[in-house]
Amino acid sequence: MTSPIWASRTKTRGMVLDLIRAARVISRVELVAATGLTAPTISEVVRELMVDGLIVEAGWGASTGGKRPMLVQLNPPARYSVGVHLERNTCVIVVVDLAGRQIARTSFSGVASMPPERGLSLVAAQVNASLDTAAVDRSKVLGVGLVSYGPQDRRAGVLLTPQPTEEWFGYPVADRLAESLGLPVLLDNDAAAAAIGEYWMGAVEPRSTYGCIYMATGIGGGVVVNGEVYRGSSSNSVEIGHISIDVNGDECPCGNRGCLENYAGPSALVRQALATRRLALDPTGDDFLAEFARLAAAANAGDPTALGLIEQSARYLGCAAVTMATLFDLDMIVLAGPSFAVAGSIYQSVIQEEVDRRTFARQAHRVRVVPSVSGSDAAAIGGAVLVLQSELTLGPGRSADSTRPPPSPTGEAPATTTV
Amino acid sequence: MTSPIWASRTKTRGMVLDLIRAARVISRVELVAATGLTAPTISEVVRELMVDGLIVEAGWGASTGGKRPMLVQLNPPARYSVGVHLERNTCVIVVVDLAGRQIARTSFSGVASMPPERGLSLVAAQVNASLDTAAVDRSKVLGVGLVSYGPQDRRAGVLLTPQPTEEWFGYPVADRLAESLGLPVLLDNDAAAAAIGEYWMGAVEPRSTYGCIYMATGIGGGVVVNGEVYRGSSSNSVEIGHISIDVNGDECPCGNRGCLENYAGPSALVRQALATRRLALDPTGDDFLAEFARLAAAANAGDPTALGLIEQSARYLGCAAVTMATLFDLDMIVLAGPSFAVAGSIYQSVIQEEVDRRTFARQAHRVRVVPSVSGSDAAAIGGAVLVLQSELTLGPGRSADSTRPPPSPTGEAPATTTV
Repeated sequence: MTSPIWASRTKTRGMVLDLIRAARVISRVELVAATGLTAPTISEVVRELMVDGLIVEAGWGASTGGKRPMLVQLNPPARYSVGVHLERNTCVIVVVDLAGRQIARTSFSGVASMPPERGLSLVAAQVNASLDTAAVDRSKVLGVGLVSYGPQDRRAGVLLTPQPTEEWFGYPVADRLAESLGLPVLLDNDAAAAAIGEYWMGAVEPRSTYGCIYMATGIGGGVVVNGEVYRGSSSNSVEIGHISIDVNGDECPCGNRGCLENYAGPSALVRQALATRRLALDPTGDDFLAEFARLAAAANAGDPTALGLIEQSARYLGCAAVTMATLFDLDMIVLAGPSFAVAGSIYQSVIQEEVDRRTFARQAHRVRVVPSVSGSDAAAIGGAVLVLQSELTLGPGRSADSTRPPPSPTGEAPATTTV
Repeated sequence: MTSPIWASRTKTRGMVLDLIRAARVISRVELVAATGLTAPTISEVVRELMVDGLIVEAGWGASTGGKRPMLVQLNPPARYSVGVHLERNTCVIVVVDLAGRQIARTSFSGVASMPPERGLSLVAAQVNASLDTAAVDRSKVLGVGLVSYGPQDRRAGVLLTPQPTEEWFGYPVADRLAESLGLPVLLDNDAAAAAIGEYWMGAVEPRSTYGCIYMATGIGGGVVVNGEVYRGSSSNSVEIGHISIDVNGDECPCGNRGCLENYAGPSALVRQALATRRLALDPTGDDFLAEFARLAAAANAGDPTALGLIEQSARYLGCAAVTMATLFDLDMIVLAGPSFAVAGSIYQSVIQEEVDRRTFARQAHRVRVVPSVSGSDAAAIGGAVLVLQSELTLGPGRSADSTRPPPSPTGEAPATTTV
């Protein structure tokens, strides 16, 4: 049950800010209509948001009889956040402004093969470098969204998986990164981040219930209901790569059998492609994502073997997409992540076909399958967006999961902003 | 986004009432602590609820220094609601009091083979008879929860499936029943109803995220998050009987392939049992639920063929339960409905085993598998509970889906209570 204490003022502020973000440009009168709040309350909240610099005037709207209403919009350079996507092979860092627009990006590999302490030092150094390069005032940085695969203990800020190595299991990744950076760090699931990113970027109807399938080295998922990530009991939801598509399938290291990832994921596809002996792939290549990209490119170019494999992978994903749509009753499924980058249109059309034909509630409404507006960087951008959302619109009750850095030894306040 | 207008007074009242229901007996001081509201607000709300007769005094609690606090509790006979479960073979009607306790029950068959108009007349007659038998004052009846299989257009109060016959597709079942009875009627999914029933009966921890697998002639599902049914975009969620457990399985009339129901449901089991030619079942029996019950009883009695079939069915259900737990990140899965009545303990232990071994987030927390406290009548009782919840705790914004009867021609107010 939501405590009515923070439900009041902070939530009102958050709700108004979220409406302004979603509308891009909006008048006070429209805010009154959209919220059901009184005109004086809206005026007061708008004034506060202006004083804080979060919104600015945006000219005058059309008159509806009386004088023309003043319009307001977000002030993108008022706040920033950082998204860090830690994947098996690559780490992507983005800096975004209040509108979720990317103003700096870097990516590098090697973190996963290091012990966590060294890996996180490297990440911290790269975050600092990105902020410096983008010339961002650190006092305007709300925090860092560190996103990675599950399972996780999100509150404790630790990964509950021996990936990439045993040393990472239970290591306090969020705390350590927060200490290194002097910024709050929030740990979350990469696919959930990719999902909420779509919402913040204005790519979905605000009241939609939609899902995201995220494919990089593995396959993850996220669901968003009315602008909030569906969490479940421990924020380890929608792990679509590890649902079974074959009850008699092989055991997966995760404990389940017939897991989607082992049929449709890039690693499985490269294995299947090598077995055909008909495609020019490097059987010794240790970067299976590069081999997968070659396979996807061959499919795009019309190679029948490659096309057959990619289409089969898309059918398997389609099966899981139908399960997801049938259980969550989704309006839309977003395809995100680097492994949809090359053959995305093949995946999109086959998955759409499966969903149209097989989803249980198709008599009630259609489920659209669309590519992510953030493409390959959707998870990193989504990580940054989770920080914006958590700090600005959901209120402090929801952002308690982020790890605050300890006060600095010199007694200076840490470089965080309370809004 | 929640409109703050009804979020205020009605929601506060609903929240307090829900806390009293969940706690069974509670003091004002404890309500203050649990809600974060001020003592005067709690006193005012408690006074109102007493004036309306919804709660009563329940003696004095232990002193914590000052005078002993007065305790309050629900007043079960203050309000009633009716649950109607319309299934393929059977219709179950229950009348429950404010605490969700069953005070009348009737069941009968034949509705599904009638045209909708005649079928609903029969249902209305039986509802009236049940209310009369239980000597319930109709002015205290909040409404009727009509629950059935999906897909549905819940807002319009119509079924979107040609079951039991083509005539039922799109027929205004909720409106017609409301007209016949002069009571508001709310249409909902039977498995979702079974799921919320557990919450209202106090069988689950209030902040839990849990699922329900409901098995009667078919297999349905529901998920409850923090005391509210997970809805998705059109309230056609968690249709677990029609998720695929075999991507290469046979096509189902629903459009999907390899659907759980065709592997694990009662009809499939009877088919499998007949194929073994080792069990004394009636191959011409048109009541496959009765044959299924005999099969389940044979399994309970240790017949190895029957046991093998029931265990295999439980493994299939386990596979789907793992998918459900992995996607929704559940704490608990409740098994409900008449087809778990006979061999429920076999199902429970096998499904628990599968969930323990295969659920993705088992490092984060366990998922318990438990039988429903409402057993075979869980859907009907849940239907009645949905009315209580919708009218009493969720506020008018959420109960707009129920169909109000038209004003009676004599100008009398319909027999509904506004609280």
